Amino acid sequence: MSKTQGLIAVFTGNGKGKTTSALGLAFRALGHGQKVCVIQFIKGSWKYGEINAAERFSDLLDFHVMGRGFTWKSDDLDKDREAARKAWKFAADVIREDNYSLVILDELTYLPHYKMIEETEILSVLKNKPGHQHVVITGRYASDRLIELADLVTEMKEIKHPFQRGIKAQKGFEF
Amino acid sequence: MSKTQGLIAVFTGNGKGKTTSALGLAFRALGHGQKVCVIQFIKGSWKYGEINAAERFSDLLDFHVMGRGFTWKSDDLDKDREAARKAWKFAADVIREDNYSLVILDELTYLPHYKMIEETEILSVLKNKPGHQHVVITGRYASDRLIELADLVTEMKEIKHPFQRGIKAQKGFEF
Repeated sequence: MSKTQGLIAVFTGNGKGKTTSALGLAFRALGHGQKVCVIQFIKGSWKYGEINAAERFSDLLDFHVMGRGFTWKSDDLDKDREAARKAWKFAADVIREDNYSLVILDELTYLPHYKMIEETEILSVLKNKPGHQHVVITGRYASDRLIELADLVTEMKEIKHPFQRGIKAQKGFEF
Repeated sequence: MSKTQGLIAVFTGNGKGKTTSALGLAFRALGHGQKVCVIQFIKGSWKYGEINAAERFSDLLDFHVMGRGFTWKSDDLDKDREAARKAWKFAADVIREDNYSLVILDELTYLPHYKMIEETEILSVLKNKPGHQHVVITGRYASDRLIELADLVTEMKEIKHPFQRGIKAQKGFEF
């Protein structure tokens, strides 16, 4: 039998469902007893709900929150860049050390998009990842080069958002 | 404090991530200790991975597989229609009986699309759902009327699929 072939998957676009899909993939892998590592590059993109739920899988799931938020509104770009570099270095080590079947790099795309790190570095680590390891990358603005490298790419396109109707974020649904 | 306002969310389009997003939302809600009901209208769209994982939430999550597959290739359309009607009746009862915070109607869209049931019936049940209950509907071919009724709609657009590269489905990732 052939060994598992690890995929690089990208969930991008402006619609809801990118992080949530990654979460669903984590849930699926955990169900197979596979080890999963989630690295969250934007503080707060994973919410109370899933963090609580993740505790039922603490034997299989490791969860890391990195960075300071990495927004273009930062009042201290140097600090942001340093945090971004550290976060990416951590992620690159996790990929190389090969202790997980699935590594989720949640909202990673913002780092190269806002020039926090060089995309070439990311692509190089991904190209050399362990063969059977799945890597999922979420976030808007996935670049053409990342899409070219990935095996599976879905664009989540916003057709309608509840905030357009003046509906507030709902517990258990949005957070 | 205002009561939770239940949303109707639709994940449609031809890309990967529709059912997986619903799964992620289930995971989030379960993390809040909320009760979740998943009704799967196409046999096999939820896979071993998530069904195993769901067992860790058996106190909160109910999972129902309905129907015979409902494909346009059916050799017995009358039987399919009957199964579809039964499945929809079951779902409509679940929504009305109001025992869950989140009801996931996975791949429901195929039923009206293939004329297995009248969409008007579905829309009427959704319009009259309990106010705080979230309902998530997944599947291709979401109709304009369903999109009009929903609060949140994301189109999952396939940019790239691993089968295009001759990569087979991978355990823990695709099933």
